[in-house]
This record gives sequence, structure tokens and C-alpha cells, in this order.
Amino acid sequence: MALAWAIWALNQLGLYFVAASRLMFAIAPAQGKPLLSKAQASLLVGKARWIHAVAERGLPVAPTIVITRAAWEELQQERSNGGDTLRRVWVATLFKLVKPGTTPPELVVRTSANKHIAGLQSARVGLAAPGKEMDAVDPQRPMGKAIQAAFASYGPENAGWAGDAEIERRRNELVIVQAMADGTIEQFLSRNLVTGGFGPVPMQGAKLPRLPDIEPLIETLDAVSGQHMAVLVAIKPNEAQFLSARPVEVSAGAQLEAAVDRVERKIWTPAQAVKHFDSTQLPQLLHPRLATRSDAEPVGVGLGVSPGAASGEIVFTAEDAARCRARGRHCILVVMETGPGDIEGMKAATGFVTARGGMTSHAAVVARITGKPCVAALRSLQIDPVNGVCKIGDRKFAAGERITIDGNEGLIYEGALALSRPHIGGALSRLLDWADDSRTIAVRTNAETIEAARTALSFGAEGIGLARSEHMFFSAERMIALRRLILSENEHDRATALEGLVDYQAADYAALFATMQNKPVNVRLFDPPLHEFLPRSDEDIEDTAASLGLSVKALKARLQRLSEVNPMLGHRGCRLVITYPEILAMQIRALVAGVETAMDNQDLPVNLEIMVPFVTSAREVSWVKSRVNEYIGNAEIFQRGANVAFGTMIELPRACLRAGDIAKEVDFFSFGTNDLTQTTYGISRDDAPAFLASYHRKALYDVDPFVTIDQRGVGELIALAIERGRAVNPHLKVGICGEHAGDPTSLRFFAGLDIDYVSCSPYRVPVARMVLAQS
Amino acid sequence: MALAWAIWALNQLGLYFVAASRLMFAIAPAQGKPLLSKAQASLLVGKARWIHAVAERGLPVAPTIVITRAAWEELQQERSNGGDTLRRVWVATLFKLVKPGTTPPELVVRTSANKHIAGLQSARVGLAAPGKEMDAVDPQRPMGKAIQAAFASYGPENAGWAGDAEIERRRNELVIVQAMADGTIEQFLSRNLVTGGFGPVPMQGAKLPRLPDIEPLIETLDAVSGQHMAVLVAIKPNEAQFLSARPVEVSAGAQLEAAVDRVERKIWTPAQAVKHFDSTQLPQLLHPRLATRSDAEPVGVGLGVSPGAASGEIVFTAEDAARCRARGRHCILVVMETGPGDIEGMKAATGFVTARGGMTSHAAVVARITGKPCVAALRSLQIDPVNGVCKIGDRKFAAGERITIDGNEGLIYEGALALSRPHIGGALSRLLDWADDSRTIAVRTNAETIEAARTALSFGAEGIGLARSEHMFFSAERMIALRRLILSENEHDRATALEGLVDYQAADYAALFATMQNKPVNVRLFDPPLHEFLPRSDEDIEDTAASLGLSVKALKARLQRLSEVNPMLGHRGCRLVITYPEILAMQIRALVAGVETAMDNQDLPVNLEIMVPFVTSAREVSWVKSRVNEYIGNAEIFQRGANVAFGTMIELPRACLRAGDIAKEVDFFSFGTNDLTQTTYGISRDDAPAFLASYHRKALYDVDPFVTIDQRGVGELIALAIERGRAVNPHLKVGICGEHAGDPTSLRFFAGLDIDYVSCSPYRVPVARMVLAQS
Repeated sequence: MALAWAIWALNQLGLYFVAASRLMFAIAPAQGKPLLSKAQASLLVGKARWIHAVAERGLPVAPTIVITRAAWEELQQERSNGGDTLRRVWVATLFKLVKPGTTPPELVVRTSANKHIAGLQSARVGLAAPGKEMDAVDPQRPMGKAIQAAFASYGPENAGWAGDAEIERRRNELVIVQAMADGTIEQFLSRNLVTGGFGPVPMQGAKLPRLPDIEPLIETLDAVSGQHMAVLVAIKPNEAQFLSARPVEVSAGAQLEAAVDRVERKIWTPAQAVKHFDSTQLPQLLHPRLATRSDAEPVGVGLGVSPGAASGEIVFTAEDAARCRARGRHCILVVMETGPGDIEGMKAATGFVTARGGMTSHAAVVARITGKPCVAALRSLQIDPVNGVCKIGDRKFAAGERITIDGNEGLIYEGALALSRPHIGGALSRLLDWADDSRTIAVRTNAETIEAARTALSFGAEGIGLARSEHMFFSAERMIALRRLILSENEHDRATALEGLVDYQAADYAALFATMQNKPVNVRLFDPPLHEFLPRSDEDIEDTAASLGLSVKALKARLQRLSEVNPMLGHRGCRLVITYPEILAMQIRALVAGVETAMDNQDLPVNLEIMVPFVTSAREVSWVKSRVNEYIGNAEIFQRGANVAFGTMIELPRACLRAGDIAKEVDFFSFGTNDLTQTTYGISRDDAPAFLASYHRKALYDVDPFVTIDQRGVGELIALAIERGRAVNPHLKVGICGEHAGDPTSLRFFAGLDIDYVSCSPYRVPVARMVLAQS
Repeated sequence: MALAWAIWALNQLGLYFVAASRLMFAIAPAQGKPLLSKAQASLLVGKARWIHAVAERGLPVAPTIVITRAAWEELQQERSNGGDTLRRVWVATLFKLVKPGTTPPELVVRTSANKHIAGLQSARVGLAAPGKEMDAVDPQRPMGKAIQAAFASYGPENAGWAGDAEIERRRNELVIVQAMADGTIEQFLSRNLVTGGFGPVPMQGAKLPRLPDIEPLIETLDAVSGQHMAVLVAIKPNEAQFLSARPVEVSAGAQLEAAVDRVERKIWTPAQAVKHFDSTQLPQLLHPRLATRSDAEPVGVGLGVSPGAASGEIVFTAEDAARCRARGRHCILVVMETGPGDIEGMKAATGFVTARGGMTSHAAVVARITGKPCVAALRSLQIDPVNGVCKIGDRKFAAGERITIDGNEGLIYEGALALSRPHIGGALSRLLDWADDSRTIAVRTNAETIEAARTALSFGAEGIGLARSEHMFFSAERMIALRRLILSENEHDRATALEGLVDYQAADYAALFATMQNKPVNVRLFDPPLHEFLPRSDEDIEDTAASLGLSVKALKARLQRLSEVNPMLGHRGCRLVITYPEILAMQIRALVAGVETAMDNQDLPVNLEIMVPFVTSAREVSWVKSRVNEYIGNAEIFQRGANVAFGTMIELPRACLRAGDIAKEVDFFSFGTNDLTQTTYGISRDDAPAFLASYHRKALYDVDPFVTIDQRGVGELIALAIERGRAVNPHLKVGICGEHAGDPTSLRFFAGLDIDYVSCSPYRVPVARMVLAQS
């Protein structure tokens, strides 16, 4: 037994020795190329990675070795035990810094972290090389002291927080020991901060000396890091010896230009350019701007600290911002300054204005991260949140009044000015085209107006995944027509109201089909949650009564009868056409007429998809399908080649569970993730602000489930529905609509499901194209 | 090949011959006992079954044989082919009707259906026995003609409707051929129609002659049918020869008394009595009645056509009834007459009044089936549905006014009179006690008042499965206290409001615990959907403002801020205590104080279960649990032996999906099937009447999912949650609360799940006890 234990112990020590000895090695030896095992190469992060890559390419690099925390601690352990086995390895490694036949150079000790950590020790230079072997491990001697301090600067142990992976990561933290170079030390940028153009570019306006043969070095760093780098070199007459580099943050535009340039220089393949691009940066490239320099006089001038322009209602608190956003309205958060407690409101606001702060204030930083415009340091701003008013100079604004802000110029305007939305071109367009080569899931858009459809097409949308037919009635004149329908009390009134709607709808559909040519257009049958379409204010009720030829009292009585306790779960979706089939008949008539008109003017067949919303069972789907077939009949459009598919929105938990039955009846499923999230969580999005902020503060939800899809709840239902649907109908087409289809994290999850397309808002189409290509 | 085919064909014929010959046999031969194969016995339905059972016991029966449709058709086939193989079997069977050495008797031909079918041929008597063998199969001769007509009277073939089972059933339809008996023919009832007492009982007031040794006959019929029977016998001086019998419909009370009497007479075991009892009849036994013959003068007198009494708001249409019911209120449907189109409204109403009709009118029949009181033929009733008013005699009532109806006496009273609710005793109590012996799932009740708890205990409830703490505030005085809390705008106001609530709650809890002794009491933390607890009418708002010391304007502003678009999915359940932990602290204080007071006065320890409602994730549960533990601390109640368990309501789809995480945090799950149905279907129960009736008319839903659990959707989620919960926490206790726990069909489904208890409203406790015993 004792013998067995001894053998085991020796083995453990032996293994550990082997392991520790492999954790100190040269990444740029004074002579020859670096020779690393796979395990060693995988340890390299940050500077060590760049140095190794440059050395491997045979470019001049100051001799450099690395050591891990595990190896350094083991050396210290051995030292206190009086051993020397590992120390010999370490000394041998140190000798890799010395060109044979020369004296050991002075040394530099650097940290090499993957990400920037506050408090990391900056480089210690000019350290004397250890005079004796014992000095090489002595934490009192200059080099050992610097190494010890460098490891300490990584911060205290955080084990237990993320378990074994975290312990392992900490054991592998690196310190770099480098031979101190001769010559002048120079620093430059690998690429231009604004244009992304190839460097060298001076750091701070200073002129650069001649940097001999620098292009291969920049190319190497570009290829390995895929980032803009601040590069440190030692200049000798005919050589720039690489010392170190660190990444610098730049605008999305500069990143984009750099990525495309790397492909042109053959540093990257197009696929690499796509893979490396940080798609969360994309929305920044699509910022709106003020349409033209209008005649409007700004009411205030501050500091433009985050680019883009936005208009919206003034709100003074995070909670009001969340509430405003939840109701689908844009708002500008106007405050003295922001802090971490305001994050929820800032997510909800379209832009920020602060009286205090500047380029590096909390508001400015958050604005740039989230890609929203921000005007800071608006000194003329006074706020009276109790009474819900503010003053900008002499002009008084109440909460709810609209302003427009220009985050480029730092200007505030009264009212909602016209904004020009960017179109994709140049570098972005090329990158997205490359992205499309490695993408298998189609990207469509949610649109019902010609303008939105055109914008989406310019962004590369491959069809319409959700045309909310009831949204076509958002203009005042049409709203009256829709209200006439909703408020009708008998079949005769309803028939009259429907007649009035057919022409509007037919013309709208014709224009939409013409715009999309033969790309698929998915039209969702009427789904008006009543409360969104009925008049609420007294003024609105009076106007509506007048236009409908009703007394105010009679209208109020009808509104009372129609009022619902929980309209989100009320008489909507397919329930509407099942109770009033004449509404379905009207819509089908309008669709068929729209297809006919469009095909009169184009050669390509229209690709129409008819979608039934808010179903809970196969029988509802089957009932609507047979009515649709009856109403379409043998429409002439079929002889002319039009395609008509029939499918359902899957947006209720029961529809997911019964997907196997439902799939037998349909050509496609489209997941409505907004309503599915509302019902799976039992949370009304409109009412969530009252408690969601508190939930986030208490870390009860990881993400806002209305922004990023809840993979472990809603996601399971989606995956289950796809599996059950495909099991009975292998040809079932599957899409995702709803706002999650424009969120990068959600898109990565959707990419792992067996789906055919996603459909998002027009401005999110590029994000979806990029993320799906990367996933 | 030809040979093989011939062998096959012969075999087929042979088999068929054997099969057909077994389908004509004696169930009461003239001599000896019937000898049936298992297959033959399994064919017997209706009269044939009773006759065979009586004959088998050796009691006197007129000789009887049966023949199936398949055999009769095969006989006809053979006859047209000129064969005689089967005919010989048939003639031999006919000879079983003849006592050896006597001449063949005249014959009777009867049908023998399992259920009553309209148009069935009544008995054909006095038919001459076939004179020649050929006559036995000749459909022109008297006996053959009667057999042919009897089969025809079963109606036309209905194959394809229910597939193979239906075809098989039809092939096995029976016709009885019986030897015509001597003596006087008499008919009597096996048991008393009202009391269920053992017969013989005369049919229509007529006096019965002496029926010699009739008890064994009635016992036999009782044992086999488990029903009241109308029995046909032929009386000879010393013998009552059994001819035939048919079941008669009787009241639930008579059925119940008969079942208990059968056990006393050892005709049935207690388990058989339980198994045979039709539990859908139970609610009828629990009908409320007018408390005492009050001084109130009826405003109208009609015909009492369905027993029980009820009070509620007057409604004039099915839709208003559904709406009223959906809002949790009782209503009386007042109409000229009802028809099939009114079924939905009739389901929703608590009672019916009709101007027309009588004992057999549509309203009367539906009322008796559904166990609701009904007054018909109220001639003094006039209705003006357009203006929403009616007149009963001279008294005018508007929709919404309350009336009370007495369906026993046919009387209508103004206002809501006191009703006395029945208590279980006598026969029902004995049957339920027997039921308990074969029941493994406990039955608890949903109750928060002492009165409800006592009622439930008297009905055999084994604990409280759901005490809705917010319902304790339904009295006017307490409602003000609760509103003060809900409307508080800062922590100070809220703290004051909470102080006011603690005493009410502590006293309520103490009384509830004392009532339940050491039976488990499950208290759900506050779950007030705001709209149910806030003032709505102008009058109510004025009163509330006055009692809170607020201006009406200020109160309206607060109400406006609190108003929710979808309150069902809003700021309720655990969301309330997470945003306002002081509400949780108050409730725990009140609970601990309640336990202390109760235990001061009793020896048994209190068994408290604390339940968190409306959770979506384990983190919410864990957060609330740690606060509960903190607030309870080392309360003295634990030293005194009180048990406190902690668990959650599972009532949202996400909670079902994440049940594995949640189960780690809790002692029990209780499924809230009402909210789970609302969210799984995306249907607000309050708003469903606008479309559910149309859904039922179009047969889109098999059942109302708020009455009978949706097994294939909601049920799957429940089963999945139990599986996931038990997988990580094998000791997890699982219950079902919600109205489905009182519905027989739903209970049978729940019995198949791995659950520990159900909890239903007090009056449904007997139903749950019975159904769970039968399942």
C-alpha cells in the first residue's frame, strides 16, 4: 500500500513537473522561430498572441518569453522547498532571450490580458537580467518582483464564481518577459481611426519617422487581431523591431472599412471578414440623420456625444421612457445626468439629452454602446420633474411634447423634424454580400407600406415575412373606415363598412405586390386588438361619432359593449374572422384583386402567402382554410401563374403544443415571438414597465424577454413546435417574425433551429443578414 | 394453386358457418340452464342481458332465444342458395323454446337494444310457431316477418361513421324470440321512483296483485343493471315468470338510495355501489333551497319544472348570461322560451324563467339535465329585451336587478333571498365514505371564509388547497383598507396601509386555522388583479376618495396611473411582492400571528402551506423564499410544532416548462388551471363570450376549456411539469386547484396524473371524492 501510494505521488509530481515546465516558453526566441506545442499556442492571449504571430512570420521582434501563473507559483513552491528542477527549465527559457555570444539584455515585463482590466500593471522596463540562477526565481530581485506584481495586478482570485473554467483561466494567466530593444521607441496606429485606411498612422497628430518595411507587420497584426491596433516598435536604421501592441476602439464605420480593406489586401478571405465583424455595431451604421439642414432654429446647443438624430416625446424618468416605448412610441429621455439606475429607461428611449456631462459621461458612453444619439452638456436645460416640465433656454416644454435631437452637432429642435435614413452602399454592402454567401436562412422584413418595403429591399430583404393588414389603416381617413367596421352592429352595417374597405385594401396590396415583384409577400389576416383601433379621448370620440353619423352617447354605448378587460387575449386574430366570416371574404376579395392588378403590370408571378393569426387548434385553421379556398375559388390569378400559400402564425403556447395537428393543414408556420412571449410569461408588454425594472435590478431575469428571446422557455416551445410540425409535414416552411428576429443574440439562437427565414423590421435586415451568416 | 384456393375457400365457409351458428342460441331454454360461450355472453345487451341473468340464477323465465343480425342475414343468404346447414342450427335453437313432450308455443319477437332508440319495433306477440322447417327462415311467415321488421327497426346502416367498431356493433344487433307465456301479464317497478325503496312498486298508481316470490327476481335485475327497472312478468298462481324489463330514469336521490340499499341487501359490494353511481348526478343532490319559508310574497307563480332555488341578476340573452358568468356573477336567464341556440347562455345562467313551456319544454329538460332550478309557464311575464326590462305581473324589473326563483314550487321573488345549502348525510354520506376507501388522491377545498371552510369540512374536505388571501377583503370596510394599500404612492403611505391590514389578516387566519385544526391550509400570497379591487363607477370613486381622504381628481389620477391594458397579465402575483417586499412582510407577520393565536387554543399543530402565485422562473421563487425565511425567522410557532411548507402556484406556461428548476426551490406545486388555460389558449375568460359561443356552434372546440380541462394542450403542460418537477424533487407534493378540479371529466384526467390532491369549491368536494374513487 505504502509503495503504491509512493508511486502514485511520484507520478503526480512527475506529471505536474511536465505540465509546469510546458507553461514557460519562448514566443519570439532570440534565435530561430518559435516552436510551440498546440497546448502552448492555445494559451496565448492578448499581446503574447500578437508577438507570437509576428515572430512566426519571421518579422523582427524583440526576443520574448511567457510564463503562466501556474508555472510561476510552482517555481515559488519549489524555491521554498529548496528544489531546482523547474528553475533549470525557467533559466533555460530565459536564455532564449539572449542571442548566443552576447551578454544578457535588460528586460521588460508586461502583462498580456485578453481584455482590458482596470489596474493592470503597465510595462516595467529596464530591469536587470538575473545575475545568478537563484535570482531568476527570487521575487525580491527586479525581474521576479515585476513578474510577481504583474500577476497580482490581474486582481484577486474569483474562484467559485464561474467554477472550474474560471479556475483554469486564472491558472493560465500570462506574464511576458521581453529583451529590451535598442533604438528609438515609436508608437503608431495600424489603421486610420476614421476611414479604416491601412497604416501606419501617427498616434496623436505627431509626425512619424520612416518605419522601414512596416507593411508585413501591420498585415500580420491585422490578420490575427482583426482590430485597429496601437503598435509599439523599436526603430533602427533598417529595421522596425516589434515590441507590443494593444487594440483600440473605433467607430463601426472604420471597422467596416478596415474589414473590406483586409479582404482587398488578401489578409482575410471574405468569409473571415464576415466572421470577425462585430454585428452588434451594425445598427450604428444605419443611424438616421436630419434630412437636410432645415431652416429650423435649434432651441438649444450642447455637445454632440453620440451620432445620429432622433425625435420623440419628452420623458423625464426611466419608467416613463419604458412605458412610452412599451406603447410603441419614441421618446427622448431628458435628465440632468444619467447613472447605472437609468439603464432600463435608456434602453427604452430613442435618444438622450443631459444638462451635465460630456464626451465620457455615463449618458455618452451608454449612447455610443447602444447606438443612440445623445446631446450632453446642454447648460440651458432646467428640469422640474414633479410638474413634468422643463425649460431649454426660455422655451418651456411639457412631458409628451416632441423634440428632435442631432447627436452629431449637439443641437435640439422643437417638434419632429424629418430624418433621413441611411442606405446601404460601399463597404457595408460588400460585406453583407459576402455574408450572404455563407447564409442559408433567408431574411425577410415586416412591412406593409411601400416605403418600408423599398427601404427593406435596399437593405437586401428577400421578401415580406409579415404584412400586418390592419396597419394599412393607420391614416386618419382609413381609420374611420376601419372603425366603421369594428363598430358595426349588424350584418348590413358590416357589409357596408366592408365594401368601403375593399378598394383601399386592393390598391394597397397591388402596390405592395408590385414593389416586391415575385418575392414572397406574407399577408396576415386582420388582427386588430380592439383597443388599438378605437377612439379613446373625448375629442376623438366626438370626431368618430360625427364621421360615423352616430350620437356621442350611442357611440359610447357601442364602445362600452366592445370594451374588453384583457384585449390582448380577446376577440382578435382568427377569432374575428370566425365570428364574422364576411371580414374574411372581404380580405380575400381585396387580395385577389391586388394580385390581379399587380400581374396586369408585370411579367413575374406574385408570390402570396396568406397567414391566419392567433390560432389555438387545427380546427380553427382548417375552418379558415376551407373558407379561404371557397372565397378564392378558381380565381383567374392561378391561370396566370400566381402562387398562393396558406399558413398560420404560431404565437400561443397551445399552437406550439398542437403543432403536429396544425402542420397537416398548412404550408408554413411563422412564429410570432412577441405574443408567444407575452402568453408564455403571462406578461402584458404594455404593463410590464411597472415591475420589469425591479426584476432587472434584482437580477431575476437575465434579459428583457421582449428584446432577447427566452431560449429556455419560449425557445423550447418554438423548437418543440418545429419538431412536431416537421414530423407530419416535412415540407413545412418555417419562419420567425416578431421583434426578436432583429436581435443578434436571438438570431444566433434561431440560426440553431431548423428554420427557413426570419422577418424583421427594415432597418434590422442588415443585422439579420450578418448575424445569420456568422452563426 | 387451384387446390390451395379451394381449401382456403372451404375453410372460410367453414369458419363462417361455425361463427354464424354460434350467433343464434338460447338464453333461457325451456329445459335446463342456459349454456353460453364467453363470446356469446359478451353479445348480450339490454333485455337479453337481463333475461339471461335471471335464467342463469334458475328463476322462472319464459323460454327465450336470441339471434344476431349477422346470423339472420346468413340464414337468408343460405335460403336463397337453397342450402340448409345453418337452417338446421336455427330450427334446433327454436326447439329450445319447447318443453319436451309439448307442442310448440306461440311466439313473441322483441328487440334488445343497449340504449333506447326512437322507432324500435315494440314486442310482436302471439305469433304462430313455424309449421315446417322452411317456415323458420321465411320472412313472409309470421315469425320471420317479425324478426325481419325488428332488425329493420334498428335503423339504416351507419357504417363509415365510426369505422370497424360500428360495423361490428351492427352485425351483432340482437332480436329476441320468446315462448309466449300463460297467465296474467303484469308490469311493475323494481324500486320506488322517489325513495329508491325495494319493490315491487305499482307502475301507475294501479294496485299490484300478489307476485309470488318476486324478491330474487328484483335482486337479480338490480345486481345486473344497477338501475330502476320496469319489469314484465306473467303471473300464474305460484309463479311469476319473467318476460322482459326496461330501465326507467329516476332522480339522483332515488338512484343514491337504491345504491345504498343494494349494498345493505348484499346485492352489491360497497365498491360496486361506488363504481356504478353516475357522478354527474351528484350536483343535483346538493341543490340549494330557500332557507326558510320567508314572509316574502312571490311576485309571480309559474310551474316548478326543475328543483332547487337560486338568485341572481336578471339577464335577457344568452350572451349577457355568458358575460355575467364570466365576471363571476350569478344570473337568472329570463326569456319567453328557450331553444337549442340558447345552450351557451343556459350553461352560464344559475337558473331559468320562461313565460311559455311546461314540464317537458326545452328549458325544463335542460334545467334538469344541468341540475339548475327552472320556473316555466310564468304567464304573467312580459319581456322588452330592446329596452332591457321585463314585467312580472305589475312589477317592472330592469336587466341586472336581482330575483330569486324556487324551482320546486315555481315561485319568483324580488331580490336575493337567503338560500339554505344542503348538507351531506344519510345515503350520500355512506356512499362517499365507501368511495373514500378506493380513493388515493386527497380532496381539499378552495376557501377563505370560515363559512366556506365549514361547509367543505361537512362535505369531507381534507384541507384547504387554496385560500385566496385577497378575497378576505371583499367586505366594504376591508375593501377600503386594501384600496388604501393599492393606491398608496410611497413607502410611508404603504406602510400605514399595511399596518391597517395586519390585524384583519391575523384574525382571519387564526379563525381559519382553528376551523381546519391540523388539516393543511394553503394560503396563496396576495394576488389582486388590480381591476378587480379598484372602484369603477363614479359613485364608488367618490366614496373611495372620501374614505381615503383624497380629492376625486387626485384619486382619478392615481387610478389612471394604475390602470393596466391587460390586467390579467399585469402587475400581480409574485410581481407585487417583488416590487413591494413590505407587502410580503405584512402577510408573513399576519400568518405567523394567526398560527400563534390558533395554537394558543388548540393542541394540534397548524399545518400551513405558503404559496407564491404567478411565477415564471426559479429565481422569482428563490427570491420570495429567502424573504419569507427572513421574515419568519425563528418564529416561536416552530418550537410549538407548527409545520410551514413553501411552494408555488404553477399557472403560466413558462412555469410548466421550467418546472425542473422551480421544483428544487419548493415543497409543493399547485396547478392553477384557470390562468394556465387563459395563457395557454391566449383567451381572457372575461372576454371569451364574444366568440366562444360561435366557436361552439361551429364545433371548433370540443369542450369549453374553462369548464373541462383541455387534455391535449393544457394537460400536456401539466403532465410535463409534474414529470420535470418530480425528476429533481421526488418528494414534491402536487395538487390541482382551479375550477377544473370540480369537473368530473377533468377529474378523471387528473386521476391519471401523479398528483397528491385536488382542491375545488366546497360544493364540488363530494363530486371530487366520488369521481376520484371511480377513476
